[in-house]
Amino acid sequence: MPFEVTVLGTSSALPTSTRHQSAQLVNLLGRFFLFDCGEGTQMQLRKYKIKIQKINFICISHLHGDHYLGLVGLLSTMSLLNRHKELIIFCPKGLKNIIDTHLKYSYTNLVYPIKIIELKTGGLLKVFEDEYCQLFSFPLKHRVPCFGFRLVEKKKSRKILSKQIEKYNIPISSIPNIKLGNDYTLENGQVLRNNDLTIDSHLPRSFVYCSDTKYFNKLVSYVYGADLLYHESTFHSDLSHMAELTYHSTSKDAAMIASKANVKQLIIGHFSSRYKDVKVLQKDAKKYFDNVDLAVEGETWKIKKEYNYEDNS
Amino acid sequence: MPFEVTVLGTSSALPTSTRHQSAQLVNLLGRFFLFDCGEGTQMQLRKYKIKIQKINFICISHLHGDHYLGLVGLLSTMSLLNRHKELIIFCPKGLKNIIDTHLKYSYTNLVYPIKIIELKTGGLLKVFEDEYCQLFSFPLKHRVPCFGFRLVEKKKSRKILSKQIEKYNIPISSIPNIKLGNDYTLENGQVLRNNDLTIDSHLPRSFVYCSDTKYFNKLVSYVYGADLLYHESTFHSDLSHMAELTYHSTSKDAAMIASKANVKQLIIGHFSSRYKDVKVLQKDAKKYFDNVDLAVEGETWKIKKEYNYEDNS
Repeated sequence: MPFEVTVLGTSSALPTSTRHQSAQLVNLLGRFFLFDCGEGTQMQLRKYKIKIQKINFICISHLHGDHYLGLVGLLSTMSLLNRHKELIIFCPKGLKNIIDTHLKYSYTNLVYPIKIIELKTGGLLKVFEDEYCQLFSFPLKHRVPCFGFRLVEKKKSRKILSKQIEKYNIPISSIPNIKLGNDYTLENGQVLRNNDLTIDSHLPRSFVYCSDTKYFNKLVSYVYGADLLYHESTFHSDLSHMAELTYHSTSKDAAMIASKANVKQLIIGHFSSRYKDVKVLQKDAKKYFDNVDLAVEGETWKIKKEYNYEDNS
Repeated sequence: MPFEVTVLGTSSALPTSTRHQSAQLVNLLGRFFLFDCGEGTQMQLRKYKIKIQKINFICISHLHGDHYLGLVGLLSTMSLLNRHKELIIFCPKGLKNIIDTHLKYSYTNLVYPIKIIELKTGGLLKVFEDEYCQLFSFPLKHRVPCFGFRLVEKKKSRKILSKQIEKYNIPISSIPNIKLGNDYTLENGQVLRNNDLTIDSHLPRSFVYCSDTKYFNKLVSYVYGADLLYHESTFHSDLSHMAELTYHSTSKDAAMIASKANVKQLIIGHFSSRYKDVKVLQKDAKKYFDNVDLAVEGETWKIKKEYNYEDNS
């Protein structure tokens, strides 16, 4: 089952004729998380043939229009298409009021339940958990209250070596106990060590989304060790004074965070409209961190499984 | 100087991968009116290389999202691009509250003045006038308060026949008086009739925008005699029960209004996403009114000048 990120919007506040406002869709084992929802996100979802009803969670980083102005339209479309299942929205305080104001004046009642969970400052806080994943929020430093998100896959139980199970004729009823890491005792009293019956599952994968923020050292700890980091990169480092002034990051800032946090791969996005060719930003970032991709709308990054041993399965 | 309508959005509530939500830009002698502003309108303006700061007036028909959800983003972009000149917005009650709620939570102060004028029911009401045009609003019949708009060019003063002015050596200072329709007396006492010095200017042109509405007879009077009518046509007439239920029009309804109101040309738009090929709607409409065009995004309709005489100028 995949853990993958599809980029839907790569522009900063001013969209261009080819770049849309922020929105990134993450599929984690069939759970769909939409990170930010700029104007036109529902059109982008249609363009890339992604079924909008698949979305389970929407995570809004902050209440600047380029990060949420597509939300009310998306909610309305979900309703028009007769959604039934619950939608959970993580967002800063205020978004509920905005949504309610729209629904009031359009005399609209959404036909499906929404749960709105307001984010809190105070470090890396778990905001959601199920049997397969955990979602954390953490504070960023922007001109308005702003949050990043860290989505972490849970460690899976050990994988059974089916040849060994067959060899020793171990009953199916004993499999769950072996998966938990326990040894197995045959009827003749011989103890089979768990390591001979199972192998470790892949290492838990993680994705971090850093929306609008200026550079700050504490961010390294929130991002640390991520398999894939999406980090805003509004300006080239030669405009660091602009980044400072507007509480944004340069391509160097994004790369420095990635490097210090020992992440495996970095995607940079949220490009200022002044850059017709964003390769200059990638070139800038690569001076400080090698594995940097430019966000491209419609493209998908798959997070590979990694193991503590050589995987021959 | 032109009087022309550029179509930016042709979908109804559910956008498709090729059709955007309602927005139509009208250029009347250099004044730019945006009729409705569905989600993604600013992207459509960019796509068709229309400078957004040209827009002087935005007319919002009603507060269903597909007719206004692009507005806050457009206002923000105008501000980011350092607009200075005033923007006038005509809209139903409630939009000011929506805009204010957004600006509050994004801690935004727009850097240019906005004047918001709330529309009133009570028939065809003049909401704006300058030396070249008049804008009227009128009530439609939809599920929420909804308005149509009638934009009318003012009659221009008579056109001077320059050959006659030269022939009689009439001083420039006398031209304004002659343009008003007055005769001119030469120094020798000979009276030159105004008809020999001028010709009538073209007939005042008009455009009517009928956003979401069910068919009702009174609408004919609001639309009467328009040079160009943009009328919603969500359904084919074989789904008239759906139109009735949702307070929308069929292609037949739009054509019947155009026919009864003796308009010169009809554009139908606001197509339901169920129609992959909207030519069926045109075919339906043409049974009742001949001069029907399908709205096509990015295309411009020019309203031609017409005269009470044969124009040889």
